[in-house]
Amino acid sequence: MGKFIVIGERIHCISPAIKAAMETRDPEPIKKRAKEQLDAGATYLDLNIGPAEKGGEELMQWGVKLLQENFDNVPIALDTANKKAIEAGIKVYNRSKGKPIVNSADAGDRISYIDVAAANDAIVIALASKAGVPSDNEERQGYVLEMLEYGMNLGMDAADLWFDPLFLVIKGMQEKQQETLQFISWLAEQGFNSTGGLSNVSNMMPKTLRPIVDSFMVAMCISHGLTSAIVNPCDKQLMQGIKTADIIMNQSLFSDSYLEL
Amino acid sequence: MGKFIVIGERIHCISPAIKAAMETRDPEPIKKRAKEQLDAGATYLDLNIGPAEKGGEELMQWGVKLLQENFDNVPIALDTANKKAIEAGIKVYNRSKGKPIVNSADAGDRISYIDVAAANDAIVIALASKAGVPSDNEERQGYVLEMLEYGMNLGMDAADLWFDPLFLVIKGMQEKQQETLQFISWLAEQGFNSTGGLSNVSNMMPKTLRPIVDSFMVAMCISHGLTSAIVNPCDKQLMQGIKTADIIMNQSLFSDSYLEL
Repeated sequence: MGKFIVIGERIHCISPAIKAAMETRDPEPIKKRAKEQLDAGATYLDLNIGPAEKGGEELMQWGVKLLQENFDNVPIALDTANKKAIEAGIKVYNRSKGKPIVNSADAGDRISYIDVAAANDAIVIALASKAGVPSDNEERQGYVLEMLEYGMNLGMDAADLWFDPLFLVIKGMQEKQQETLQFISWLAEQGFNSTGGLSNVSNMMPKTLRPIVDSFMVAMCISHGLTSAIVNPCDKQLMQGIKTADIIMNQSLFSDSYLEL
Repeated sequence: MGKFIVIGERIHCISPAIKAAMETRDPEPIKKRAKEQLDAGATYLDLNIGPAEKGGEELMQWGVKLLQENFDNVPIALDTANKKAIEAGIKVYNRSKGKPIVNSADAGDRISYIDVAAANDAIVIALASKAGVPSDNEERQGYVLEMLEYGMNLGMDAADLWFDPLFLVIKGMQEKQQETLQFISWLAEQGFNSTGGLSNVSNMMPKTLRPIVDSFMVAMCISHGLTSAIVNPCDKQLMQGIKTADIIMNQSLFSDSYLEL
């Protein structure tokens, strides 16, 4: 297995600074966050432009070009509810450092995001849910197999579907966390790639707790075979968890300075 | 599953202060380390008196009484190469807070430590090895089943054999760590209890790295079903890993102050 893949989540229009930068096409705040995340160890950058109903195509193209021209064709996860914006973004996307990621499909209303990925030789993040939280892992497995078949019928390679187990918040769903880990094990046994918004587990916790909980959770998930996550790479403790789990799983080579690499 | 059980490793004759205290029967240094470990979250205290060929029986009895009288009958792991000393210790042991642990048997020369446990209604730590490092998990499984049968033939309950997967050092045996995790999964699937000297994984690493590596390793092991470890509970980051993994595995109840409990 290869090293765990970090998709940096911090270029997101939910941040007021990023939202303003996207609206005014101001490159600096976006470049700053991109650099911070890449310096911290991100491989992919998520570019979330929100619903982007108006002008989404042009905005996504601007964002993709901005990031790739300034950061050596960094690979990008194109993240929006506007499918046309994703297609427009892929048109100007340079794949020399990796395929684009379409973020995201599910087994319900968003199944057609798999079509977008298939038509554009892209990776797609495929959520193991249809409408709301799946009640158990059998239901999750059903959705995964449904989406896999759907993608393969469109000519996709199974490795290009990155399945998201759907990380649930511990506060209120503490008894569901083991299920997530078991589901990750199942995905790994099938040889599937996986990813997801891992920090959702620590949602609503005090700020000081979140990096602690996220970091141990990510290490536990990696030990069950999770291959990627959409996270904040500027969270130092989280990155310690990822790098250490990579060492323990023999996915990167140990040296006394492995945390600095 | 219950909460992860921490066996505090710091009352060990390898420490010059503890060695001197044992030789002169000075209670204070031993009481101090016991209190530190119990305050930090240890359930059991390991009492390691070394080979103790001469006077081991009397020393073990002194240590057991010292700890139990001062710390509300704290349960103890009796740790020495002198079997008679273990038997003597158990004679004065008060079981109101838990059975004594015999530390430790293996499938080779030390198999008779299982006899000691069986004859004294004690728990025994049973190393999955015979002579040296097992070459793979099949070999480990063979030893575990051998020791299980041996113990059950002597009337032991399977739950009283705590199997030690044999934690190996990452430096030099990086590719063996996944095997340890897989073996822990196998032990958990059989419903066996498990424990071990977990911090061996970070042996020979720089001092600043060890708590980081140990803490993520223990969380990963707990997520695979490890039920106990012999560790230093005064390592704060390690205890964070244990407490957080207990939360994620739903083995203890989440509250915003769970790290302080």
